Amino acid sequence: MIRVGVVGYGYWGPNLARAASETEGLLVEMIADFSPKARERAAQRHPAARLVPDWETLVADPAVDAVLIATPVSTHFDIAMAALRAGKHVLVEKPMAETPLKATRLVEEAQRRSLVLMVDHTFVYTPAIQTIRNLIDQGEMGDVYYYDSTRVNLGLFQRDVNVIWDLAVHDFAIMDYLLDADPVAISASAAGFVPDSPENMAHLSIYYSNGAMAHLNVNWLSPVKIRQTLIGGSRRMVIYDDMQTSEKVKVYDRGAMSGDAGYEGMVSYRLGDMWAPALSSKEALVTEMQEFARCVSTGAMPLTSGLSGLRVVELLAAASQSTRMRGQPVELVNLKEAS
Amino acid sequence: MIRVGVVGYGYWGPNLARAASETEGLLVEMIADFSPKARERAAQRHPAARLVPDWETLVADPAVDAVLIATPVSTHFDIAMAALRAGKHVLVEKPMAETPLKATRLVEEAQRRSLVLMVDHTFVYTPAIQTIRNLIDQGEMGDVYYYDSTRVNLGLFQRDVNVIWDLAVHDFAIMDYLLDADPVAISASAAGFVPDSPENMAHLSIYYSNGAMAHLNVNWLSPVKIRQTLIGGSRRMVIYDDMQTSEKVKVYDRGAMSGDAGYEGMVSYRLGDMWAPALSSKEALVTEMQEFARCVSTGAMPLTSGLSGLRVVELLAAASQSTRMRGQPVELVNLKEAS
Amino acid sequence: MIRVGVVGYGYWGPNLARAASETEGLLVEMIADFSPKARERAAQRHPAARLVPDWETLVADPAVDAVLIATPVSTHFDIAMAALRAGKHVLVEKPMAETPLKATRLVEEAQRRSLVLMVDHTFVYTPAIQTIRNLIDQGEMGDVYYYDSTRVNLGLFQRDVNVIWDLAVHDFAIMDYLLDADPVAISASAAGFVPDSPENMAHLSIYYSNGAMAHLNVNWLSPVKIRQTLIGGSRRMVIYDDMQTSEKVKVYDRGAMSGDAGYEGMVSYRLGDMWAPALSSKEALVTEMQEFARCVSTGAMPLTSGLSGLRVVELLAAASQSTRMRGQPVELVNLKEAS
Amino acid sequence: MIRVGVVGYGYWGPNLARAASETEGLLVEMIADFSPKARERAAQRHPAARLVPDWETLVADPAVDAVLIATPVSTHFDIAMAALRAGKHVLVEKPMAETPLKATRLVEEAQRRSLVLMVDHTFVYTPAIQTIRNLIDQGEMGDVYYYDSTRVNLGLFQRDVNVIWDLAVHDFAIMDYLLDADPVAISASAAGFVPDSPENMAHLSIYYSNGAMAHLNVNWLSPVKIRQTLIGGSRRMVIYDDMQTSEKVKVYDRGAMSGDAGYEGMVSYRLGDMWAPALSSKEALVTEMQEFARCVSTGAMPLTSGLSGLRVVELLAAASQSTRMRGQPVELVNLKEAS
Repeated sequence: MIRVGVVGYGYWGPNLARAASETEGLLVEMIADFSPKARERAAQRHPAARLVPDWETLVADPAVDAVLIATPVSTHFDIAMAALRAGKHVLVEKPMAETPLKATRLVEEAQRRSLVLMVDHTFVYTPAIQTIRNLIDQGEMGDVYYYDSTRVNLGLFQRDVNVIWDLAVHDFAIMDYLLDADPVAISASAAGFVPDSPENMAHLSIYYSNGAMAHLNVNWLSPVKIRQTLIGGSRRMVIYDDMQTSEKVKVYDRGAMSGDAGYEGMVSYRLGDMWAPALSSKEALVTEMQEFARCVSTGAMPLTSGLSGLRVVELLAAASQSTRMRGQPVELVNLKEAS
Repeated sequence: MIRVGVVGYGYWGPNLARAASETEGLLVEMIADFSPKARERAAQRHPAARLVPDWETLVADPAVDAVLIATPVSTHFDIAMAALRAGKHVLVEKPMAETPLKATRLVEEAQRRSLVLMVDHTFVYTPAIQTIRNLIDQGEMGDVYYYDSTRVNLGLFQRDVNVIWDLAVHDFAIMDYLLDADPVAISASAAGFVPDSPENMAHLSIYYSNGAMAHLNVNWLSPVKIRQTLIGGSRRMVIYDDMQTSEKVKVYDRGAMSGDAGYEGMVSYRLGDMWAPALSSKEALVTEMQEFARCVSTGAMPLTSGLSGLRVVELLAAASQSTRMRGQPVELVNLKEAS
Repeated sequence: MIRVGVVGYGYWGPNLARAASETEGLLVEMIADFSPKARERAAQRHPAARLVPDWETLVADPAVDAVLIATPVSTHFDIAMAALRAGKHVLVEKPMAETPLKATRLVEEAQRRSLVLMVDHTFVYTPAIQTIRNLIDQGEMGDVYYYDSTRVNLGLFQRDVNVIWDLAVHDFAIMDYLLDADPVAISASAAGFVPDSPENMAHLSIYYSNGAMAHLNVNWLSPVKIRQTLIGGSRRMVIYDDMQTSEKVKVYDRGAMSGDAGYEGMVSYRLGDMWAPALSSKEALVTEMQEFARCVSTGAMPLTSGLSGLRVVELLAAASQSTRMRGQPVELVNLKEAS
Repeated sequence: MIRVGVVGYGYWGPNLARAASETEGLLVEMIADFSPKARERAAQRHPAARLVPDWETLVADPAVDAVLIATPVSTHFDIAMAALRAGKHVLVEKPMAETPLKATRLVEEAQRRSLVLMVDHTFVYTPAIQTIRNLIDQGEMGDVYYYDSTRVNLGLFQRDVNVIWDLAVHDFAIMDYLLDADPVAISASAAGFVPDSPENMAHLSIYYSNGAMAHLNVNWLSPVKIRQTLIGGSRRMVIYDDMQTSEKVKVYDRGAMSGDAGYEGMVSYRLGDMWAPALSSKEALVTEMQEFARCVSTGAMPLTSGLSGLRVVELLAAASQSTRMRGQPVELVNLKEAS
């Protein structure tokens, strides 16, 4: 039995604790939060767990095998590093750290100590993304040409992070899982329309080593909520619409008839069937916890390892850098080598 | 009565000729097309019009007061310049010319001769765009923060122009009409996934002098057709969905409560009513022809004048330049001065 | 403080108990359920409440002022009657009883004892229905011509009740609240396509005294879930789509230009604006509990009184009767007099 | 070459004439319309055709092999009967006649003379309906349980016919083609909300010999246009949405798990994939004309023969009869025998 300690019981921590408690092989041993109110809520939901105000106590406790971190980004590094140094396995909220350097040091520390370092890239474990990954693996999509995502809504403005770190991080995690090529450069534009607030609108273009492209449209100031991703392949194309209650993933047998010179010297295209695979109703967070338990027990590399967390932080950092130069492209090569 | 000559009777020319024939004050005097088949079709629809194979004859004919040009972009400059030099008023298909320089020379020639030079930016004359322009004029939108358009479909690949010159040109024309500030820089990314074909996917970010932003997502390789534009203002936001048969324009009384510090140090927002104004069913092309007739008779400056055509060509040229540098921003200041 | 006892803690009872506990003036004193598992769940959520296996004990308890009944329909009458005879106010799950006669006797008992008898017609308390009711009151709709509802999905087949008693009951409750005229006759068709199961598809037409009509399409065997109601008025028409996350209620300024002889001897029509009022996010069940508390304290007649419950049961009984005669209309006059 | 004469060149006649002129084996020989304006339009589109004001001349003309009738319903019988008696094949607009008796006499006359009598049930020839028919033939749907159609919009009120004869006729034609069982009874409700106008809203339930059911919801006074048909089968279910530009037909691998006693004594159901077959873009009217040419040449029985026209008229008549009795069911057995 893996005894986990949960650090942070605010917005997301309760979900991690609940999912852990529902996962075979995991036991919620301890929960840390400085807020008495939060500890009270935690006690009600997890009567068997010990409650402490400070994370240092939790991380130092010999009865804790693994630490789940659900605190603000700025604290991820210190807590995760302390946990690793105390010999604990770590699952940390995304983004993994504020800077690629800090993310790299966490990865190296975990490797040195042969501990599991996993990042909570929840979307990767959804039935929708798992289904799309399978389509790619089975060659159904052919070569993946592009990933084009719109993730906008009328959102609460964060004070500490901008819309890129709040919303684009989800797509970066999905792209890291779905796209096999390496990103080589990123060009990003951003703007803020509310005084004394971080940027609330951004557009990011990511260039890949194989000529593929990704593009993200993120916005906190949209009149409606849109969660739509188009993924174009040489054989098939996919629309992933997370706002749909059913038919979240639609697969289109459509595309350009490359090579074939069509009507009036134009490239022609084919219009085939559309197909919406039935998706499992299993909760992503539970799948993720099972993956964490599996890796802790077997020493396997998680689907969303520290390295993927590092790559996502690199993209976030590069995107922010490009926005300050009105979209001037930032090469990702050196960053890659750094990892 | 203004006697018009139509040059080019292929895909779009017939629409211009029909609209002209339905517009009071315009008479279709002559039609030029090198293809016998095209002239045959023209004869059937416009029995009263004279038909000639070469545009030179049409442009030189004293019975022609104005020339409507619906030929490939590469021929616009020569035909339009000849028409102006022959003292004819000109309505030219968009984009007005291949380069800002050529567009500038057409503008100067028309000014020198006090002739009407108008560009066929059809969308500007649609009831939807006219309605949005009125909302802005009446202050309903407040300050316009952004214009964000998705214009994708599974399209026939052009051999001569890429997706920017084919699709983004529509948005540039609309933006030129709706946004009062000046664009100061553009950052654009593009990619082509079909061998021996021009770029079929592009993303463009345009920076405005007042801090507003525009963004375009154009793609010939999308599984579905999307024509959706979000326009964000400080007071209201608009969704313009051209694929809707009704409710093309939706006005949302939503936005951020700027200045007001909301829940947990975040900017709060308001969720008000939505309103879809009834739109006129008048055909845009007829409205446009009436504008052309009005300007020819009165010497007034058209809503979509040669200058707007020039500004659109400048944006197209700057966008193409940026795509060759992976999104490196291209300043528009000098270009503006050039005009 | 009104001390309530909740009978039945299966599927719906927990919602009633929770809503009561969140409502000022109501205190959950006691909960009855024969299932030990159910009582365990109840104990966890309502530690202060006393738990008993049998409803008789709860109904007899002097510490209980009002009884909330969330048990199968077949038991409603016995429990509600016993509660009324014990001098308790009653809120009963819908449908109120199995037969109009039983419903009538409950109404009479409550009247004799001046006790509150309220039926849990939850939809009546939703912001959407409240908004539509206001539109009608303010004359925005004009004369209400029709109510046409589609309530279909792939549903679990009930063993005890058919699709009319399961789904149409919602619309009957809404119609009783929205339509001011009296229903005079009903014609209903039904069919069952699954062996040894009740009817899973039904269509009901209800005739009103003023010429208005209502129609319901209910189905447990639809490939998709639809919750859409069209309400036609002489001045405006409404679409109420409960599957929409936003814009559940759309008001259309459209209709026939009565009296005006239009094009080619046809009645013409007008196409005006559409308007989607912002809806409150208040939970219907809490609004309903506040209404119950208000009526118990003041002796006022609830919005969804026993009489409305009786009228709904009358419609259900008449509909079932008509389905057995392939849609032969059943007059509602006598039934009305019975109440 | 089959020389056709077109009677009536108002709203629909031009479509029949154009389709005929585009169909190999058909030649538009003659067009009759009493209106000079209509004949003028016809002359422009069909310069080779002879034009006459009266249908009698056309029907009598020896150069005419077949007559296409696109006149008001009240005139169908006289013109079609005269054409048959003159030895011409006939394609008549739907509904075929005003009464089952008149329809029967036309069928008998055509049979006696071995002439083709075909009805213009256009929807039967659409790629969507052809695709659904194939799904049924291939057993993909299993047993067809129900056909449930909503056909509503804000429509021009006809003065001569009500909404049943205007809209339900389309579904009756589709049902006649798709459903293999015989209709045995119909129950229909109707209402009119505009003074001095025919009924504008109706709901029809049709009972089939094998227990299947059909239901139609037709309305001229809906705020929005809906063209949606649900078809439920034991193996699969279909949604046919004619308002969709793509994906008009969606096939759902969903249904009740009959026989299997599921959760808590309820019938369980399965949620499988959805599939939208690519549809041909061929125009229905051209397919229909090809069928007419084929039958005239070979003497084969058309897909939409006079008998199908008769069965549709029987349903229309029975529906109208039921509406006058508030939905009292009208048996169709005798009517069937009459044919």
